[in-house]
Amino acid sequence: MAEHVDLLIQHAYLFTMSGSGVGYVPDGAVAVRGAQIVAVGPTDELDERFDAGELLDATDCAVLPGLIDAHMHTPLAIVRGVAQDVRHWMQLALAPYSRHMTLEAARAGSRLNVLEALKAGTTTQVDYTRPFPGWAAFFQEVGVRARLTPTINALPRRGMAGWTVGELYPFDEKAGQEAIDRAVEFGRQWHGAGEGRITVMLGPQAPDMMPREQLIQVKRLAEREGWMIHMHVAQGDREIEQMVKRYGQRTPAYLDELGYLDEQLLAVHLTEATDEEAALVAKRGTRMALCSGSIGIIDGIVPPAKAFRDVGGLVALGSDQACGNNCNNVFNEMKLTALFNKIRSRDPSVMPAWEVLRMATIEGAQAVGLGDEVGSLEVGKQADLISVDLTALNLSPVLTEPVRNIVPNLVYAASGHEVKTVIVAGKVLVRDGEVLVADEAAVRAEAQVQAADVAERVAADPVHEGMALLEAMEAGWL
Amino acid sequence: MAEHVDLLIQHAYLFTMSGSGVGYVPDGAVAVRGAQIVAVGPTDELDERFDAGELLDATDCAVLPGLIDAHMHTPLAIVRGVAQDVRHWMQLALAPYSRHMTLEAARAGSRLNVLEALKAGTTTQVDYTRPFPGWAAFFQEVGVRARLTPTINALPRRGMAGWTVGELYPFDEKAGQEAIDRAVEFGRQWHGAGEGRITVMLGPQAPDMMPREQLIQVKRLAEREGWMIHMHVAQGDREIEQMVKRYGQRTPAYLDELGYLDEQLLAVHLTEATDEEAALVAKRGTRMALCSGSIGIIDGIVPPAKAFRDVGGLVALGSDQACGNNCNNVFNEMKLTALFNKIRSRDPSVMPAWEVLRMATIEGAQAVGLGDEVGSLEVGKQADLISVDLTALNLSPVLTEPVRNIVPNLVYAASGHEVKTVIVAGKVLVRDGEVLVADEAAVRAEAQVQAADVAERVAADPVHEGMALLEAMEAGWL
Repeated sequence: MAEHVDLLIQHAYLFTMSGSGVGYVPDGAVAVRGAQIVAVGPTDELDERFDAGELLDATDCAVLPGLIDAHMHTPLAIVRGVAQDVRHWMQLALAPYSRHMTLEAARAGSRLNVLEALKAGTTTQVDYTRPFPGWAAFFQEVGVRARLTPTINALPRRGMAGWTVGELYPFDEKAGQEAIDRAVEFGRQWHGAGEGRITVMLGPQAPDMMPREQLIQVKRLAEREGWMIHMHVAQGDREIEQMVKRYGQRTPAYLDELGYLDEQLLAVHLTEATDEEAALVAKRGTRMALCSGSIGIIDGIVPPAKAFRDVGGLVALGSDQACGNNCNNVFNEMKLTALFNKIRSRDPSVMPAWEVLRMATIEGAQAVGLGDEVGSLEVGKQADLISVDLTALNLSPVLTEPVRNIVPNLVYAASGHEVKTVIVAGKVLVRDGEVLVADEAAVRAEAQVQAADVAERVAADPVHEGMALLEAMEAGWL
Repeated sequence: MAEHVDLLIQHAYLFTMSGSGVGYVPDGAVAVRGAQIVAVGPTDELDERFDAGELLDATDCAVLPGLIDAHMHTPLAIVRGVAQDVRHWMQLALAPYSRHMTLEAARAGSRLNVLEALKAGTTTQVDYTRPFPGWAAFFQEVGVRARLTPTINALPRRGMAGWTVGELYPFDEKAGQEAIDRAVEFGRQWHGAGEGRITVMLGPQAPDMMPREQLIQVKRLAEREGWMIHMHVAQGDREIEQMVKRYGQRTPAYLDELGYLDEQLLAVHLTEATDEEAALVAKRGTRMALCSGSIGIIDGIVPPAKAFRDVGGLVALGSDQACGNNCNNVFNEMKLTALFNKIRSRDPSVMPAWEVLRMATIEGAQAVGLGDEVGSLEVGKQADLISVDLTALNLSPVLTEPVRNIVPNLVYAASGHEVKTVIVAGKVLVRDGEVLVADEAAVRAEAQVQAADVAERVAADPVHEGMALLEAMEAGWL
C-alpha cells in the first residue's frame, strides 16, 4: 500500500545539490511529509511509492533547494537606490537618510525586502540590523527561514557625527553593554521560534566598533548559548586604519590573537583582506559571507573569496543593502560572483556556474551553520525548495545532452523573476509567482508611504545639503 | 479644438534622455501620431492639447526610450548555455555545435532571441550573422527595429579545422568575394524595408579574417551605398597575433593606416585594445559596441570603454551571443557595464547609472547611426519607447526628493522582466508583458525541437568528445 505524504513534487529537472556536484535527477521528484523531505528520486519510483495529499507538477521547471542569503539589512529597502555611484557612500549618501529612519520605516522596509527576496527564491534570510518592534514577527508570520542578528556596537549614540576622519572613534562602553544585553534578550526570546525556522546570531557590528573586552564578552556569550557570531570583518580601509591605530594590528591578525577565528564566526565582506589574510581566516574554520553586488557598487572591489575557497573555506552569498546593491536577490549574487571573480583572475574558468550555485545552496547553508537542515534536497532535511520556470524565453531551450545547459542558464541568464514556487518547511509560500502568505500590495503601499515620509524629513534637514548625489540631481542626471 | 493623435501615454515618471542628462519629466506624457512622436511634456498639458485614439495610463511606471542592443548573434540562442566557464570557448565548447547548426535551427534560435530581447525592452536590435532564409522577414513581421549585418569573411569553407594555433590562417579569396556579393545583394533587398525599420550594415567578421584588399573593397562599397560597417575589432589575442604576424601591426594601427577608423565604423569588443589604442580609435570618430556580459564570461576581461568615452567616443551596449552571456538583455548589460568598470577602475563613481542608461538609449542610438531617429523621446523622432513597472518589489519604493532613485534602480535592480509595454514606431508590440505580434509559445516550442535536434547530432559526432564541458558533465557539476 502506498505511504501517505503531504506533498509530491514531480517531473522536475531536479538538482538536489547533494554530494560534490549539483545532484541532477532527470524527471525527478521530491516527497514531503510535514516540514521534512521523506524521499528524493525519479518520478516514476516516488509516484508508485507515495499517495500524496497534494501533487505539484514541475514539468518544464528546474527544482532546487531554496536559496540562502547570508547577509541582508532588510530595513534599508526603504531607501533603495539612494546611495550608489559615489565615493564614501555611507557618509555622503546614506547617512542623511539613516538619521530619519523611523521605526515604522524600518518595519515597512524590512517587510518589503523579505517579500522581494522570497519571490526571488530566497528561503533562508540572514538579517542583520538594529532590532525594532515587529522585526522577527514578520519572518515568523510569512514562514520564511531566518537567522536574525541584532547589531551590537559601542559607538556613541550620536553616531559618527563630530568624528574626524583619521582619529580613533570614542567608545561608549555603556551603550555597548546595553546592546549586548538587548541582543541576548532578543536571542532568548526568538531562537528556535516558528517551529525552529527562526534562529539568532550575535552581531558585533565590526571589530573596530567596540572595545576588545566587549568583543571577548560576545564570544563567551555565543559559546555559552551555542549561537554563531555574524560580524563585518575587514569591511573597509577605515576599519583597517582604526585597528592599526588602536591595536597595531590589521583585523585578521587581531581576531586571530583573540581566538575569534573559528567555525562559530560568519565573517562578512573581507573587502580589505589580502589573499593571504583571507586564507588565514578560512584555515581557522571561519565562514565567509560574500556580498559581490554591494561591494562592487560601493567600493568597486572584488573580495578575496577565491583565495578563501582555495584553502577549503566555506563561502555563502549575501545581498547586503538595497541602498547600494540595489536588489536583494541571490540569482543576482550568483551571476555577479561568477563574473567578478573571472575578471579578478582574468580567467573565464574561475568560479563556474556550479560553484556559485553551491555557494547559494549547500555551501551557503553550511557556511551559515544550517548545513544539516537545509541547502540540499535529502531525506531528513527540511523541505525548503523552489521551482524555476524554464519556459521563460531567457532560459530556453533546455539541452540535456551532451552538455546540460540548465545550471549555467540559472546562474547567468535567470533573474529570479522566473521563480514559480517557493516552499519552506513543506509549506507553499509562493505559487505561480504569487505570494500566498502576505498581502504584497499592502506591503508595497506601506513602504511607499513610509519612504515618502523619510524623504520628506531628509529634504527638510539641512544636513542633506552635503549629499554627493545632489550634484547629479541638479545636473539632470537622475 | 483638440488635435488628434493615435496614442497618448500619460502619468509616467518620464525619462526623455534628451539634452545631456536623463530628461526627467514628472507626471509626463508622450503623444504619438503614426510612427512619430508629436509632443512630449507634462500630462496635464498634453491631455488638454490632444484627443487620443488610445490612452495608455503609465501611472507607477517609468517611461523611457526603447533600448538599443548594438551587437547580437540571434541564431545562437538555440545553443544557449553550452559555452561558458571554459577557456577557448569557441574552439572547445561552441565549435562542435556550430558544425551542426541547420538553417531551421538558426531560424528558430533567431526568433527566440528576437522575442526575448523585445520583452526585455530592446526596440533596436543590431544583428550579426551568416544570413539564412527568413532572417530579416521575422524582424519585419514582429515590427521591431533592426540593423542587420550579414557576416563577411574569407576563411576556407571548412572553417578553422586543420588550422594550427600560431600559424597564419589561409584565405579563400573566392569565398570572401562571394560573401561580399551576397551581403551587398542582401543590403539592396532589405535596407529601408518595413517602413524604414529594417536597415543593413556591412559586416567584415574581423580584420584578420580577410585579405587587406577585400577589407578595402568593403569600405568602398559601404561608402558608395551609405551603409555603416559593423566589425569585430581587437576581439582576442588570436586576432592580434595574426595581425602582427601578417602585417607587423596590431589591429588599431593597421585599421588606422587603411583609413578604416571613422564614423562609419561600429567597432565591436576592443577586448585586447590598450587604453591608448581605444583612445585612438575613439578620436577618429569610430563607434564602440561594448559587450560587457559576454566578454566577462568568455574572457574574464573588461574592455577599455572608459578610455574610449573619456576622449569623447560614443559607446553602445551589446548582448552578443546566448552561448556565453547567456541572455540577450540590455538591462543586464547596463548593470554589468557599470559594475565591471567600477571594478576595473577600483572606483565606485565610475560609470554611474545615468551614463550606462545613456549608452543603452541615446548614446547607443548615435553609436549605431540612428541618433536622429531613436534613442530619445523628442518631437519628430520615431515612437520607440517602453514602460517599466515600478511597483515590482525590487523597484520599490519610488523616491523623488531630495534624491530620485528611479534611474539607479532601473540600472542596478531591474532585470527586464518588469517591462510592461514595448512600442516601436508607434505600434504596441508588447502589452502587460505579453507579446502581441508573434506566438511566443510556438516560437519557444520550435526552438526546443530544433535545439534537441542539434544536440542529438552533436552527441552522435565524435568531435564532441573534445569538448571542455564534458568533464563537468561527468563529474556531476551540470
